[in-house]
Amino acid sequence: MKSNSNYDVIIVGAGPAGMSAAIYLLRAGVNCLLLEFSSPGGNLNKTHMIDNYPGFVDHDGTTLAFNMYNQLTKLKANLKIEKVKNINYYNEQIMVETNKECYTSEFLILASGRIPRKLEIEDIDKFLNKGISYCATCDGALYKDKSIAVVGGGNTAMETARYMSNLAKKIYVINRSSALRATKKDQEEIMMKKNVEILYNSKIKKIISNEEGITGIELDDKKKLNIQGIFVCIGYEANDEYYKTLSLKRDSLGLIVNDNMQTSNEKIFACGDIISKSLYQVVTATSEGAIAANTIIEKLNKK
Amino acid sequence: MKSNSNYDVIIVGAGPAGMSAAIYLLRAGVNCLLLEFSSPGGNLNKTHMIDNYPGFVDHDGTTLAFNMYNQLTKLKANLKIEKVKNINYYNEQIMVETNKECYTSEFLILASGRIPRKLEIEDIDKFLNKGISYCATCDGALYKDKSIAVVGGGNTAMETARYMSNLAKKIYVINRSSALRATKKDQEEIMMKKNVEILYNSKIKKIISNEEGITGIELDDKKKLNIQGIFVCIGYEANDEYYKTLSLKRDSLGLIVNDNMQTSNEKIFACGDIISKSLYQVVTATSEGAIAANTIIEKLNKK
Repeated sequence: MKSNSNYDVIIVGAGPAGMSAAIYLLRAGVNCLLLEFSSPGGNLNKTHMIDNYPGFVDHDGTTLAFNMYNQLTKLKANLKIEKVKNINYYNEQIMVETNKECYTSEFLILASGRIPRKLEIEDIDKFLNKGISYCATCDGALYKDKSIAVVGGGNTAMETARYMSNLAKKIYVINRSSALRATKKDQEEIMMKKNVEILYNSKIKKIISNEEGITGIELDDKKKLNIQGIFVCIGYEANDEYYKTLSLKRDSLGLIVNDNMQTSNEKIFACGDIISKSLYQVVTATSEGAIAANTIIEKLNKK
Repeated sequence: MKSNSNYDVIIVGAGPAGMSAAIYLLRAGVNCLLLEFSSPGGNLNKTHMIDNYPGFVDHDGTTLAFNMYNQLTKLKANLKIEKVKNINYYNEQIMVETNKECYTSEFLILASGRIPRKLEIEDIDKFLNKGISYCATCDGALYKDKSIAVVGGGNTAMETARYMSNLAKKIYVINRSSALRATKKDQEEIMMKKNVEILYNSKIKKIISNEEGITGIELDDKKKLNIQGIFVCIGYEANDEYYKTLSLKRDSLGLIVNDNMQTSNEKIFACGDIISKSLYQVVTATSEGAIAANTIIEKLNKK
């Protein structure tokens, strides 16, 4: 007999990977709990347009997140909005401690993604949500008709500049190298925006501010730009505080998993942006979630 | 200078894997050709309801196929409806010969899927499209108010029985073992259909027919059933005739690929149902297509 707080599987994180895993587990009749500390969808909610999830055309990330959540609701998913504080081994089971309760399970799926990397400038934290942002979909509207800087040269930076080009007066893309890393398609799109200017071999040296907030930046080459906001898009780093006690193998990109999404512990699986892999995309995350779920289903069926 | 028939990448097969690869290649500005001998979508077009592609709720396979095709059209994809007859190595390139032309490319992506396994009964080919079918979405309407048999016990068999339960008068599921292999959710759904009867430990011994077609079947235990159609859902096998000359490594399930979807030849990639893997699903196929494309993009960028 199982208590209310014991599950076959606990999934940490309801982004594309975690929700996909839940869809597969629930369709197989597996008793699972899905934990998310914010709204379901993860980084999807921070993405303006989704252009490369096959079958999903001309919609924003929030719509895709809502569609996945809708699928979960139909399958009567057990989703709790709680923040995981700690995870530990407990009597051959896994114990997950949140801000509200303790839960135990036989298998664990870690799908809590990554967090954006911080800009290394003096006093940077002072300006968080006061001029420094990591998400255009979240904070973009605050900079309507203002001038901003987007730091980075990858797809997220292009996506941010494109999104802001419809809102802000002027967008400076501050790119540290002589070429952008974004796909050709994303670069072409951004080149067509008249209010976007790309600065190559460029780096922010310091932030200029007054009591009302950011008023400008000074670049390495001493050039000064009048801007009111800075969007930081320079990659991601692990959010591993809550599972450090599990001592899972990892490398510089994330948790190391095998073809079945199994970590160095046979009862613990990981999928989505939390793992070390070559391509960080919605379509790879959903696939990994399905594979992790399927492996666990086979293990449960064999018992 | 490139001739019209030379490409960076040729993709064989426009199912979910091939279309996903094309979306990623085109967005990166890669010159690619997509070859498909039938309609874009592959096995999606043979699937009634898609329940487990995250973000895609309550639609049929053809709609998902159309959405993906729509995405390709927007990206100005070069899709040719031609049947690949043979592939060979040619001056450090790959030469693909179709029923109409010859094309060459530096990289090749094989994404042509699998074909349904045939039932091993005497004279089975005599009844193809005359009572024997491998696709309910294609042929189901022919059996409105008639009685049929569905052979198999996996998800495709359940999906077929569920689809036919709204059309046919009576459906017998002929399952060779004592349990179904389908997911619990699929099993539960089928158990609720009053016109579906599951026969366990059961096998078709022979087909009974007259000049108008199939009139019944005799099972191994001598039991006779009056049915007019048989839907065969007993798995898949490779469709490898056209690429046999490439001598790629494979096992009993399909082509062997590494994490980057590379086959035993470094210029040839494979994704979707054609490869050997643990989970054959739309969501894994699209992910593999994206990974194959991304690996090729990185190789082309390094040149």
